[in-house]
Amino acid sequence: MARIAVDALGGDRAPHEIVAGALDAAADGIEVILFGPAGTETRGLPLVETTGEIEMHEKPAEAVRAKPDSSLVAAHVAVAEGRADAVVSAGNTGAMLAAGLLHLRRVPGVLRPAIAVPIPTQRGPSVLLDSGANADARAEHLLQFAYMGAIFAQEILEIAQPEVRLLSIGEEPEKGNQLTLEAHALLAAASDLGFAGNAESRDLLAGAADVVVCDGFTGNVALKLLEGTIKTVLEALREEITSSPRGKLGGLFIRPAARHLRQKLDPDTYGGAYLLGLRGLSVIAHGNSSARAISNAIHLAARGVEHDVVGRLAARLPERRSSAAV
Amino acid sequence: MARIAVDALGGDRAPHEIVAGALDAAADGIEVILFGPAGTETRGLPLVETTGEIEMHEKPAEAVRAKPDSSLVAAHVAVAEGRADAVVSAGNTGAMLAAGLLHLRRVPGVLRPAIAVPIPTQRGPSVLLDSGANADARAEHLLQFAYMGAIFAQEILEIAQPEVRLLSIGEEPEKGNQLTLEAHALLAAASDLGFAGNAESRDLLAGAADVVVCDGFTGNVALKLLEGTIKTVLEALREEITSSPRGKLGGLFIRPAARHLRQKLDPDTYGGAYLLGLRGLSVIAHGNSSARAISNAIHLAARGVEHDVVGRLAARLPERRSSAAV
Repeated sequence: MARIAVDALGGDRAPHEIVAGALDAAADGIEVILFGPAGTETRGLPLVETTGEIEMHEKPAEAVRAKPDSSLVAAHVAVAEGRADAVVSAGNTGAMLAAGLLHLRRVPGVLRPAIAVPIPTQRGPSVLLDSGANADARAEHLLQFAYMGAIFAQEILEIAQPEVRLLSIGEEPEKGNQLTLEAHALLAAASDLGFAGNAESRDLLAGAADVVVCDGFTGNVALKLLEGTIKTVLEALREEITSSPRGKLGGLFIRPAARHLRQKLDPDTYGGAYLLGLRGLSVIAHGNSSARAISNAIHLAARGVEHDVVGRLAARLPERRSSAAV
Repeated sequence: MARIAVDALGGDRAPHEIVAGALDAAADGIEVILFGPAGTETRGLPLVETTGEIEMHEKPAEAVRAKPDSSLVAAHVAVAEGRADAVVSAGNTGAMLAAGLLHLRRVPGVLRPAIAVPIPTQRGPSVLLDSGANADARAEHLLQFAYMGAIFAQEILEIAQPEVRLLSIGEEPEKGNQLTLEAHALLAAASDLGFAGNAESRDLLAGAADVVVCDGFTGNVALKLLEGTIKTVLEALREEITSSPRGKLGGLFIRPAARHLRQKLDPDTYGGAYLLGLRGLSVIAHGNSSARAISNAIHLAARGVEHDVVGRLAARLPERRSSAAV
């Protein structure tokens, strides 16, 4: 049974929604260990008492070093020491990355960890990486992201032969910037990868590929644009509809359809993103996670433990790297 | 009266929709000159006969040099020689850039031209640049894009004091990649610019700023993601609605509201993007432009002529450049 270390202080709605989500996951048979200050209302779940908190505005690397007993860092240490199998937090993303690098450390051969975000597309789930761990990246990093994303797609999204594409500004191999042109060449040379060429951002939500690879700056811009645009379009539609009596009446009839669509496109569907490339499993939940998002993030972490995502990465990545043109 | 050279062969729906759009603009008093092969059905509009066509798949710089008599190139030459004031084409974007650089040439002091795309946001229009002319850019290019965008916002969007933001992955100045960190410093030092800090992509459609600055790779990814996501969300909603009798009934009632929203968010609202930084005015229309889009693009070009956008850029940019920390 997977043992998941959960940061009770992470996120805007901590600790209430975190504990509620943890209870929900525990009810499904996942062993949850909360990390938070003495007195946290855990509603029966085990608590490892911590002192200090890393806040959203803090400088990640400094905060992680300065606050080894904070809930976020202590949860990582528990994974590093084998007292838990994975860590989940809705806290400071940079601190998650810093704590992961410091305490979980990289899988040998991994140049850079990447944030892999599952996106519910019209065609089914796809994974976008890197979604923000590396604002600047080199082509060989993108090649590794592709392999890590493919393993994620196989083990977590259950896609047997994932199709991998490189996010660029045209489908033709010669379209792109210096980074994507170099990455395209490396990806095309990696014959065991399932690389199918470039993807255009316009197809991201429709389902451009099972694995979409890019640098962390581009991925973060794309992810936030996707989320913000879905939200703005649905809000604007609601405004248009409620601005006339006729529209209001129609709104009543389409409410179930609109709700269903919102659920389909909801980033909380998966609840979190994997930080891939570390020796321990780390799941980063949205800052404003609800109980449902936290429960889903814990399930996502447990699934990664059961499928031994870290072990598979460790076993396959270096071999694959050397077989490719690096 | 503005004289606009229109490439009758540009775009997927040429020449029919191009000519229809040109007629519509001409009816509003704009002098339109079509460029296309002998025998083009111009419905009374003047035609400059050309031979050859630059197609969408051709390599831009090569094609522009190899086909000086093509409709796209000849329309540029007409502007360069003073026989027209601006050029509009829905053809190959790269060829528009190449023909602009070769025949219109850069405004002295301009390092790189940029594609400025007006976006209809919830707060009103904003302009995103560069949207694809420079897949790789340096910080000093982004500084110039900011000035060019501000002039565009003043003259074309009629925003007296445009707010300028840099597209990045966090609002804090220290969030970003190497390029945006350097650009942020330059922009912050340009005290005459109206720079208000970083913008996040999640706010783009809601209206993050009057002018949003980025490199051409990021801008192109953002623009296509925005358009594709709006389209996919509205299509998915339609599918959800029409999958039940109840939803179908509601769909009838909300149809006017949905249509109004689509119009508000329609990229055809402006019909085209400016290629800024050249000595002549160039408007690039969408490849699949309808007559309405072409008419709007011609109006956009005429407006740029009337407001002497090129002259204002030429007069203000070098002075501003030297006053900033370049």
